[in-house]
Amino acid sequence: MPELRIDPIIGRRVYIAEDRAGRPSDYSAHEATGRVVSSAPASPAAHPNCPFCAGNEAYTPVAELTVSDAGGQWQCRVVPNKYPAVRTDQPVEGAFGAHEVIIESPEHLLDVTRLGLERLTAVVRVYRDRLRHWAAQPGIRHGLVFKNSGCDAGASLEHIHSQVTAVPFVLPVVERELAAAERFYGSQGTCIFCDLLQRELAAGQRVVASAGAYAVVTPHAPRQPYEMWLLPRTHAARFDQLADGAIEPLAATLLDALERLQAVAPGCPYNLLLHTAPFDDEHAASYHWHWEIVPRLAHEAGLEWGGGVHICPLSPENAAQRLIHHDGTTATT
Amino acid sequence: MPELRIDPIIGRRVYIAEDRAGRPSDYSAHEATGRVVSSAPASPAAHPNCPFCAGNEAYTPVAELTVSDAGGQWQCRVVPNKYPAVRTDQPVEGAFGAHEVIIESPEHLLDVTRLGLERLTAVVRVYRDRLRHWAAQPGIRHGLVFKNSGCDAGASLEHIHSQVTAVPFVLPVVERELAAAERFYGSQGTCIFCDLLQRELAAGQRVVASAGAYAVVTPHAPRQPYEMWLLPRTHAARFDQLADGAIEPLAATLLDALERLQAVAPGCPYNLLLHTAPFDDEHAASYHWHWEIVPRLAHEAGLEWGGGVHICPLSPENAAQRLIHHDGTTATT
Repeated sequence: MPELRIDPIIGRRVYIAEDRAGRPSDYSAHEATGRVVSSAPASPAAHPNCPFCAGNEAYTPVAELTVSDAGGQWQCRVVPNKYPAVRTDQPVEGAFGAHEVIIESPEHLLDVTRLGLERLTAVVRVYRDRLRHWAAQPGIRHGLVFKNSGCDAGASLEHIHSQVTAVPFVLPVVERELAAAERFYGSQGTCIFCDLLQRELAAGQRVVASAGAYAVVTPHAPRQPYEMWLLPRTHAARFDQLADGAIEPLAATLLDALERLQAVAPGCPYNLLLHTAPFDDEHAASYHWHWEIVPRLAHEAGLEWGGGVHICPLSPENAAQRLIHHDGTTATT
Repeated sequence: MPELRIDPIIGRRVYIAEDRAGRPSDYSAHEATGRVVSSAPASPAAHPNCPFCAGNEAYTPVAELTVSDAGGQWQCRVVPNKYPAVRTDQPVEGAFGAHEVIIESPEHLLDVTRLGLERLTAVVRVYRDRLRHWAAQPGIRHGLVFKNSGCDAGASLEHIHSQVTAVPFVLPVVERELAAAERFYGSQGTCIFCDLLQRELAAGQRVVASAGAYAVVTPHAPRQPYEMWLLPRTHAARFDQLADGAIEPLAATLLDALERLQAVAPGCPYNLLLHTAPFDDEHAASYHWHWEIVPRLAHEAGLEWGGGVHICPLSPENAAQRLIHHDGTTATT
């Protein structure tokens, strides 16, 4: 039986309709029903035509930042996006901003979990440092770090990479959350995300991980099967202000969540999306940075595009169970 | 050089970045760059396993409505969705509503333009009549007609069909337009869509068709290459109030627009989305019904999901030129 869920932060409407996962389909190569994609990618050691592989640095612009290992081999390179949505040489009322690519390994890896903890920690540090860099630039007001993993999540290249965008306005997705968080703070005197996290941890039904400084939950009203939110358990509005000592525990939690996703849905395309406050301290008390991990298993169709309402073929409670037990097929509550 | 566009109705931000169409890609089977998909589908005369083909009526629920030809063969069937997002037996605060499938041909056609004008007119009449039916039901406040054409547009079955949804709340996509239209009406005393249409017709740069009672334009800030909006040239808020005599001209305009899309992007997946006022007359003066034709050529990725900002790799001015000249490759303005 379908169920209407309303997101407690921004009011997004989602119909949870698990029997839709059994719909017949003419399109066996595509997964429109929330079932598991089984095309777990191989990771060849080298790829002669990949512009992100070591040895092919000439195919990308000059690096803004490079992180190297003890032997001098770069492990992570930040380069300007060759096909940017925004540019720093544009007028501030136009397509002004920064758009960078973070190349996350010198080898042709297709899955960021293959990096292991130490190397992923270095990548997460770069996420923070690039935002910190852009936060200090004149005219820049807000930033986004995102990863498109897999073609169905919008990636054009498979070699693991993320992107950083910094713009002179507040990004609409976060703007909507900021408004809701301000309203809640005004009436309740506390952060709406802190409140949500306490209630989720107390209820337990949608908790995927909660040891340490971070928690991972499946949201009450997810847009996609296995959608997860990763939040710091202690209140903090700006990701770019993350302390050095908090980076490795964050990378460990992120690695764990992404490994769980790969276990239940091998090769699953997904977006990793940072939600962080604008680069000022206006929302320090009310907003709470977090990462969204949004698998792209269910196609967005007419109801989403024409109505603004989502249909999700897997409940977040069942998703949490499967993610906890690393089992995409047998857990059913 | 990328360009920031802001939608004049709801303020959506879109970066037009045409050089992104030249990005290298590891995913040749998928089109993430706005290039033309060349997998124009065949239309076999019969398909033994298709639940929408004549002869397979037992695979679908009993029809709510059937339109037949002079020989008694049904041409269009409306059936309850077997995997609904909403149901009429749910409480009104839950997943309450109607969710129907309109099967648009007895043959296994894959492209609605194959119907020709007379049969498409009958289908458009069904769109109106189903909305008119649901508008009269207690507890129902708003409706949506949509078509998902192609797997990448969210279709699970390829046989031509559309869907009707009717719900007890105002759908968020239209709610946002209603608010903008009310504000504009309050300050300007006229409909924002009428105003936009007059300016588009006067400027001419984005006009695809304007003969007769309807106009087709490419929007100033499109989310996708070849996105089109089809509007009545005379003000009207509710599609369900469409007069009988207005149906065939509308079908002709729709057919023309979809044929143009197939000419420039054969086999292109797309959503056809009705935007109409809620089933009351509160917005009669300020709102203006219209159809959006949204191709699904560019994948929505992190910037869209995490930022709420779109990147479109084809300007609407160049899109209009190509659509007018039926040429996906040579027109560049």
